[in-house]
Amino acid sequence: MNIAIAQSGGPTSAINASLAGILEECEKTDKIGKVYGSLYGIEGLIEGDLVDMSDHIDIRKDLDLLIRTPAAVLGSCRKKLPDFEEDDSVYKIIAENLKKNGIEAFFYIGGNDSMDTVDKLSGYFREKSTDICVIGIPKTIDNDLLGTDHCPGYGSAAKYIVSTVQEIIRDSNAYNTPSVTVIETMGRHAGWLTASAACVKRNEEHSPQLIYLPEVVFSDDKFIGDVRERLSSDKTVVAVVSEGVKTSSGKFAAENYQSAKKDAFGHSYLSGIGKYLEDLVTTRIGCKVRSIELNVMQRCSSHIASLTDINEAREVGKKAVTAALSGMTGIMISLERVSSDPYQCNISYVPAGGVANKEKCFPAEWIDPSGNSITEEGVDYIFPLIYGELPPIIENGLIKHFKII
Amino acid sequence: MNIAIAQSGGPTSAINASLAGILEECEKTDKIGKVYGSLYGIEGLIEGDLVDMSDHIDIRKDLDLLIRTPAAVLGSCRKKLPDFEEDDSVYKIIAENLKKNGIEAFFYIGGNDSMDTVDKLSGYFREKSTDICVIGIPKTIDNDLLGTDHCPGYGSAAKYIVSTVQEIIRDSNAYNTPSVTVIETMGRHAGWLTASAACVKRNEEHSPQLIYLPEVVFSDDKFIGDVRERLSSDKTVVAVVSEGVKTSSGKFAAENYQSAKKDAFGHSYLSGIGKYLEDLVTTRIGCKVRSIELNVMQRCSSHIASLTDINEAREVGKKAVTAALSGMTGIMISLERVSSDPYQCNISYVPAGGVANKEKCFPAEWIDPSGNSITEEGVDYIFPLIYGELPPIIENGLIKHFKII
Repeated sequence: MNIAIAQSGGPTSAINASLAGILEECEKTDKIGKVYGSLYGIEGLIEGDLVDMSDHIDIRKDLDLLIRTPAAVLGSCRKKLPDFEEDDSVYKIIAENLKKNGIEAFFYIGGNDSMDTVDKLSGYFREKSTDICVIGIPKTIDNDLLGTDHCPGYGSAAKYIVSTVQEIIRDSNAYNTPSVTVIETMGRHAGWLTASAACVKRNEEHSPQLIYLPEVVFSDDKFIGDVRERLSSDKTVVAVVSEGVKTSSGKFAAENYQSAKKDAFGHSYLSGIGKYLEDLVTTRIGCKVRSIELNVMQRCSSHIASLTDINEAREVGKKAVTAALSGMTGIMISLERVSSDPYQCNISYVPAGGVANKEKCFPAEWIDPSGNSITEEGVDYIFPLIYGELPPIIENGLIKHFKII
Repeated sequence: MNIAIAQSGGPTSAINASLAGILEECEKTDKIGKVYGSLYGIEGLIEGDLVDMSDHIDIRKDLDLLIRTPAAVLGSCRKKLPDFEEDDSVYKIIAENLKKNGIEAFFYIGGNDSMDTVDKLSGYFREKSTDICVIGIPKTIDNDLLGTDHCPGYGSAAKYIVSTVQEIIRDSNAYNTPSVTVIETMGRHAGWLTASAACVKRNEEHSPQLIYLPEVVFSDDKFIGDVRERLSSDKTVVAVVSEGVKTSSGKFAAENYQSAKKDAFGHSYLSGIGKYLEDLVTTRIGCKVRSIELNVMQRCSSHIASLTDINEAREVGKKAVTAALSGMTGIMISLERVSSDPYQCNISYVPAGGVANKEKCFPAEWIDPSGNSITEEGVDYIFPLIYGELPPIIENGLIKHFKII
């Protein structure tokens, strides 16, 4: 059978490793014929924009570069399919394009919005008794997918955050004047990325004294109180704050700083909690303060990727192929943690419908009662995910990447 | 004789390598007795806050970690000495603290403000016939010091910018929708850091199409025109813009976004050109747009340091010791480029007074007549400075640094 692969949602440092894993596994079997890449996610299947992967990648030769390349080499999209009961026109087009190319399995690497697509598309094919299997492969830096211990992409983003927060703390401590540094991290509704900054304390280094997740109600007064208290003993206070922290009214704390733009899924683009808190500290405390937004570097800094993350991203890609060959559909490959120390994880699968459009928050029991730090158990969970390095391939001082589009 | 070392100004990834170079050279001679570290720059000499370096560093053992540690391990300051003709009280205190500890040479690692201190302090000692030599060691990510081909610290910051801009471009190209990405770089009055992003084009990669330096008068209309033109042929436009771009009136282009805060030298803290241009593109063009401020990561991301930069930072440190032993004072160690390809640089020295309080701008002849890109000659200059890697020392996924304060 022929297969098709697409990548979707926000870019990560590990999404191409999952693509690599699929291609590696395909090499091992003669049951798979042509491998197509659908450009720009599901859009490629709709527009008929498919490339023969063998024209672009020789996985035995290109593996080392592909797994080190950030963002989706096949391109990505943010597209939501309608319910097929209401409007099946796009489903018919997709089915036609798949059949035309003899494609009997479609692999979709993405987050909870992509699992919505996997669920709907597999449901449509099941209802139409069309023998095409649809498999989801988890990917998100947000680590907020249900049904899996963690998500490929998260470990590398966390490793970037841990490394960069440590370097910023070094920078902040250079001067002998009281100062506050606010570091803004991604994570719309879940605090996994923000919480990863707590790993710095396992390093005998100055670590961020304050960490605020979207799971805890945020209050300007509490924040200022926390900062004042820390400034009474520490010269430099570093607070890591999620872009998504909300007040007791349920509104984003930096509501007025928030952009009005929305993406196709109705998510608002957030930015500004860092600048908002910088202003707040200036007004209410008056000491030296600066804010730093880690921005998209969190998801694209593959030069400081986690080897554990990249390896797991490959493995879930491989597992997806074996699942498809055994006729499974409508599932997402998942990671099941056996142990944190020594770290051990099994690869399994769950129904994609149980993952679609849902979010897994950072557990309340891993947040200190103070609401501004992470417990040791929380750090125990994150710590193994940043383990190991995959140094970039560099020529003449320039990092090499793999390119299709 | 005993010596003292201090670090000053903005932190860099290379400032500790110069400290290492001094310590390495001191090991080679029996002419130098105790080596003191002055904590928080010249402040340590004023407050008598000196540490015996042998209590904190064994350079043979700690070298590998020290040269990989960002920001000043002795702490830094931003302090301007008054003219000693007008007020010599602080000079008397410094002289007393030096004499008390038998210190006959003082090494100051810093930028153009620090060279002002070197010039004044050496002038004071000369006038008082005090036999204490004062040597400046160049350090600034801004690369804006006169009297030297380039400055230690610049190459590593440039390497961070080149690597990160490339990764961001990858991220920007993931979607199939027209978009503009504005990347804001440091560089108050000189465009060296911003210009470094042009090195990406040597990598057969998508490179930033537009680069705006503070040396070129900035116009909102011109910028929007440039972006529109590029969008007509390219799906994704990436513009790298210096925080310091100014309009024809001489005001910062993001004047209204600028903080009113000033540091001890009267410099305004700038921020906001990125957000300003993001708003401008939204209003005038209306396509997807985002801005990314590279912020202090430019100066503290030693995990992606340039080996050329770190090696040169060590060498200027070593040269400073030999200069002091030969009785020189009031000078700054400098780099003299012999050739760019193959890259070769000699180490020399210049009077610190010729460097103090001055800025070297990016040469007009290396800016394309369009005002929005860098010539090949400009890239030829920058390119060798980002060459070579110094991978971080990582244990359990955490980067190791060296710590004194």
